[in-house]
Amino acid sequence: MRYIVLFFIVNVVFSQEKPKPELTEVWEPEPVIVTPGKNNQPPSDAIVLFDGKDLSQWVNARGGDASWILNNDRSGSMTVTRNGGIETKEEFGSVQFHIEWKTPTKMEGKGQGRGNSGIIFQRRFEVQILDSYNNRTYSNGQAASIYKQHAPLVNSSRPPGEWQSYDIIFIEPEFNEVGTTITRGSFTVFHNGVLVQNNVQILGTTEYIGMPLIGEKQISKYMPGNNSRKTIYIQDHGNPVSFRNIWLRKL
Amino acid sequence: MRYIVLFFIVNVVFSQEKPKPELTEVWEPEPVIVTPGKNNQPPSDAIVLFDGKDLSQWVNARGGDASWILNNDRSGSMTVTRNGGIETKEEFGSVQFHIEWKTPTKMEGKGQGRGNSGIIFQRRFEVQILDSYNNRTYSNGQAASIYKQHAPLVNSSRPPGEWQSYDIIFIEPEFNEVGTTITRGSFTVFHNGVLVQNNVQILGTTEYIGMPLIGEKQISKYMPGNNSRKTIYIQDHGNPVSFRNIWLRKL
Amino acid sequence: MRYIVLFFIVNVVFSQEKPKPELTEVWEPEPVIVTPGKNNQPPSDAIVLFDGKDLSQWVNARGGDASWILNNDRSGSMTVTRNGGIETKEEFGSVQFHIEWKTPTKMEGKGQGRGNSGIIFQRRFEVQILDSYNNRTYSNGQAASIYKQHAPLVNSSRPPGEWQSYDIIFIEPEFNEVGTTITRGSFTVFHNGVLVQNNVQILGTTEYIGMPLIGEKQISKYMPGNNSRKTIYIQDHGNPVSFRNIWLRKL
Amino acid sequence: MRYIVLFFIVNVVFSQEKPKPELTEVWEPEPVIVTPGKNNQPPSDAIVLFDGKDLSQWVNARGGDASWILNNDRSGSMTVTRNGGIETKEEFGSVQFHIEWKTPTKMEGKGQGRGNSGIIFQRRFEVQILDSYNNRTYSNGQAASIYKQHAPLVNSSRPPGEWQSYDIIFIEPEFNEVGTTITRGSFTVFHNGVLVQNNVQILGTTEYIGMPLIGEKQISKYMPGNNSRKTIYIQDHGNPVSFRNIWLRKL
Repeated sequence: MRYIVLFFIVNVVFSQEKPKPELTEVWEPEPVIVTPGKNNQPPSDAIVLFDGKDLSQWVNARGGDASWILNNDRSGSMTVTRNGGIETKEEFGSVQFHIEWKTPTKMEGKGQGRGNSGIIFQRRFEVQILDSYNNRTYSNGQAASIYKQHAPLVNSSRPPGEWQSYDIIFIEPEFNEVGTTITRGSFTVFHNGVLVQNNVQILGTTEYIGMPLIGEKQISKYMPGNNSRKTIYIQDHGNPVSFRNIWLRKL
Repeated sequence: MRYIVLFFIVNVVFSQEKPKPELTEVWEPEPVIVTPGKNNQPPSDAIVLFDGKDLSQWVNARGGDASWILNNDRSGSMTVTRNGGIETKEEFGSVQFHIEWKTPTKMEGKGQGRGNSGIIFQRRFEVQILDSYNNRTYSNGQAASIYKQHAPLVNSSRPPGEWQSYDIIFIEPEFNEVGTTITRGSFTVFHNGVLVQNNVQILGTTEYIGMPLIGEKQISKYMPGNNSRKTIYIQDHGNPVSFRNIWLRKL
Repeated sequence: MRYIVLFFIVNVVFSQEKPKPELTEVWEPEPVIVTPGKNNQPPSDAIVLFDGKDLSQWVNARGGDASWILNNDRSGSMTVTRNGGIETKEEFGSVQFHIEWKTPTKMEGKGQGRGNSGIIFQRRFEVQILDSYNNRTYSNGQAASIYKQHAPLVNSSRPPGEWQSYDIIFIEPEFNEVGTTITRGSFTVFHNGVLVQNNVQILGTTEYIGMPLIGEKQISKYMPGNNSRKTIYIQDHGNPVSFRNIWLRKL
Repeated sequence: MRYIVLFFIVNVVFSQEKPKPELTEVWEPEPVIVTPGKNNQPPSDAIVLFDGKDLSQWVNARGGDASWILNNDRSGSMTVTRNGGIETKEEFGSVQFHIEWKTPTKMEGKGQGRGNSGIIFQRRFEVQILDSYNNRTYSNGQAASIYKQHAPLVNSSRPPGEWQSYDIIFIEPEFNEVGTTITRGSFTVFHNGVLVQNNVQILGTTEYIGMPLIGEKQISKYMPGNNSRKTIYIQDHGNPVSFRNIWLRKL
C-alpha cells in the first residue's frame, strides 16, 4: 500500500512542473459590458453628440447657440449654415469618434472649394472632410487626410449626395508645462469602412499656412493662459455639408 | 507712374518670404481609389475569402478540401463541422480583415466551452471568438481578446444567435534570421463597431499552455525549416459557430 | 513701359508657386539648451538622485531614512544593506533614467539568487537587475528584462564586480478613472550601451506570481484610494548590489 | 503512516491551484550573449564601419574609393574632404547606430553653413549633423533633427572642436509594391547621451525642398527600377567635419 501511495505523490509532484493552461489566464479586471448598437446606432456607453433632434450638445464657436439647419426629415441630419463652425460644449481627451457626413449633390467649386468641412479635435487636430470623389486636390488635404500632415492610404470616397462615415481613434498628445512633447498623439481612421490612417503620429497643430506648431507656439496660439480648450469643432467652410449620427466613446 | 509699379514688384518679392498655403500641400502620390462597399459589402480592393457561395479560398487544415457546411440560405453563411479548422490557400502579411460570426442560439457548455472558435493570423496569432454574452471566462480569453495576451478593453458581445462583426488591423511582426524580434506586430480590433484593442503589441505566438513563444522556439514550432506559413486559420473548437462575409485588404 | 513692367510682375507671381527650401523650415519652438555632461556626468537638466555623497533624495520604503551603505571611496557608490528597498522622495511621470550598478565580485547563489535587485518605476514597473553573466535564469527575469514581461533582445551583461549601466526611456501608462488603459506605457532600455528593449509596451504591473495586473486590480493593490505613488524604488533583494551615478530627466 | 502520507497528497494538490512564480517564467529563447565594449569601444556583435584605420567599408558616393582624410593621430578620426559624400558598401535595414563627430574649432559660416553634415539612412532618411552651439537655425534643421521632419526635443550640443556622439535606433519603413506605407519607420536618438528623438515616425524621404516623399515618388526618385539602395551615407556639405568610432548593430 505504501508504495502505491508514494507513486501517486511522485506523479503529482511531476505534474506540477508541467505548466497548466490556467496559469496564463487573467480573470481581472472583467471588461465592462457595452451593448453595441443595432442598425448603425451608437453603443451603450457612447456620448451622443447629435442624433437629429437638436444641437443641444453644441455651441456656435463665435459664442451663442449653434444654429445650423436641422433637416427635419428621415435622415436625422443637420446642414452647415453660414454662421461659423460649431463646437461641443464638453471637452474630450482620447476618444473613439463616429460621424456621418454628406457633401451636396449639386457640386459647386472644385479642389478645396467643393464640399469642404472638417472635424477638429481639441481645436487643433483636423480630420479633413471634402468631396474627394473625382475632385483632385493635394493628397494631404483630401477627404480623410490628417489635414496637411498625413494623406490617407487610399481614397475611399463616395459620390456627393451619398452618406459617408468616419470611424476615428484619436489619442491626444501629452505635453509638459513648457510645451515639450512627451507623447505625440495619434489617429487611426476608417473612411466608409476602409482603413485610411493607421496609427499615424500627430505632428503638431493643423495649420493652413506653414508647418504644424508644437511647444510654446502651440500653447500661445491655442491655449492662451495654458487653458486648453479640448472641445471638438466642426468647420463651416462655406459649403452646405450635412452631418448625422455623431457620437463618441471616451477612451 | 513707373515708380508706383516698381513698388508693387518689391512688394511681391517681399511677400514671397511669407509662407503660402501651397507650400505644405503634398500632391504625390495620389491615393489609389478604392470604392467602398454598400450595404455591408467589401470594398473594391478586397480579397473576398467567403461570400456564402463556396469555400474555394480555403482548405481543410489537415489536408484536403474545406468541408464546413454551407448554409444555403439568405444569410450567405457557413458553419463549423467537426472536420477540423480551415485555412486560407493564400498567405498574407499585414491586413485589414473583416469577418462576421454567430454562436449557436442553443447555448451549450459554458466558459471556453460555449461558442468557441478563433481567427489565427499567420497560424500563430489568435483573435478569440467566443460566446461572451453572459458567459464569464478569463478576460484574456473572452471574445475579442488577443488570446492569452490582451483582454479586450470592453465586452461588446451580442447574444448568441445574433451576427457579430470583427474589424481587425493586423500588422505582422518582423524577425531577423535567428528569430530576434525587430518589430513586434500589433492588433487593433473593433467588435461590433466598438474599439476593443487599440494598437496592442503582439507578444509572441498564441499558446494555450505557457507563455507566448518568441525567437527560435517560435520558428521551430511554427516555421520548421524557416518556412513561415502565413495563412489565416479559423478554428474548429467543436462548437457550431457560423461565419459570413469574410474579406481582407492587403496593407 | 508700363506693360513691360507688368509682365515682370506676372513672372514673379508665377515663380512663387515653386517651393522654396524655407518653407519646410520650422523655427519655433527653439529647443531648450541642455548642456550634456562630460566624463559620464549628468546633463544640466537632470535631477540627480545619487551622486555618491548622500541619500537625501531617498527614503526607506518602510518609512524612515534611507540607510544603505555609502561607500566613501572614489567610486561614489552605495550598497544595498538588509534594511529593505529605498524609494525616491519625489514622484515622477515619464523620464529618461540613468543608473550604474555592480553585483558583488564574490558570487553567491545562482539564478535569481545572484546579484538580484531592480528598479521599479511608479512602484509598479520593474527593470530587473541581476548578475546575468554566466548565470542562466529565465529569460524574462534576467538582467535588463522588463521583469516577467519582456526578455531583453540580447544579454549584454558584464561580469560581477564590474560597473554596468542602464539608460532607460520610461513612458508612463495612462488610465481612465475606472482603470481602463488609454495608452500603455513603454520602455526602451540600453544595457551597457547595447539596445535591449526597443519601445516595448508595458502590459501591467510587475508581478512575481501571476500575470500583470491592469484595471481596478492594479488600482486597488498599488493605488489604494486612487492615490498613485509614482516614486522610483530600488529593490533590496538580499544581495549587496552597489549603485552610483543615478539621475533622470523629466520628459 | 498512511494518514500522514495522504495528508501530503492533499497538500500538494491544493498547492497546485495556487499560481506559482514558475508559471510566468519564459526560458526560451535565451538571449544571445553580446559583450559590451569597454572604454567606448563597440560591442562584440557590432559591424565596425570606421575605427580610425581605413575607409575600407566605404565608397565615394560618386563612385570610386572613399577618400576623406584619415587623421593619423590618437583621435582615430577622419575628416570630410571636398570629394563628395561617402557611402557604406553594405546595405542595412533596421540598426542601432553609433557615431562620434566634431565640427571645426575654427567656426566659419553660420546657420546651416556651419559644421554641416548628416547621416542618411537608406539614402533617404537624414539625421542632421550641424554645429548648433550658439548657432541658431531652424529647429527642424539643427543638430539631431530628423532633417525637416522632427526638431530635437532639446539642444544638447557641445561646442565646436569637441567630440559629440549620436546613438540612434533606426527602424526602417515598410512599403508594399506600389509604394503604400505599411509601417512607417521610426527614429530614437540620443545626442551626447541626452534623449532628443523618442520613437518619432518617419514621414517620408528627407527633402531639402518640399514635403517628404512617399509612395511611387519615393520609389522613382530613390529606388529606380524598384532597387532600393539601403546604404548609409555621410554627407559632404562643404564643411570639414570629423568622424570617429562608427559602428552599428543589425536589429
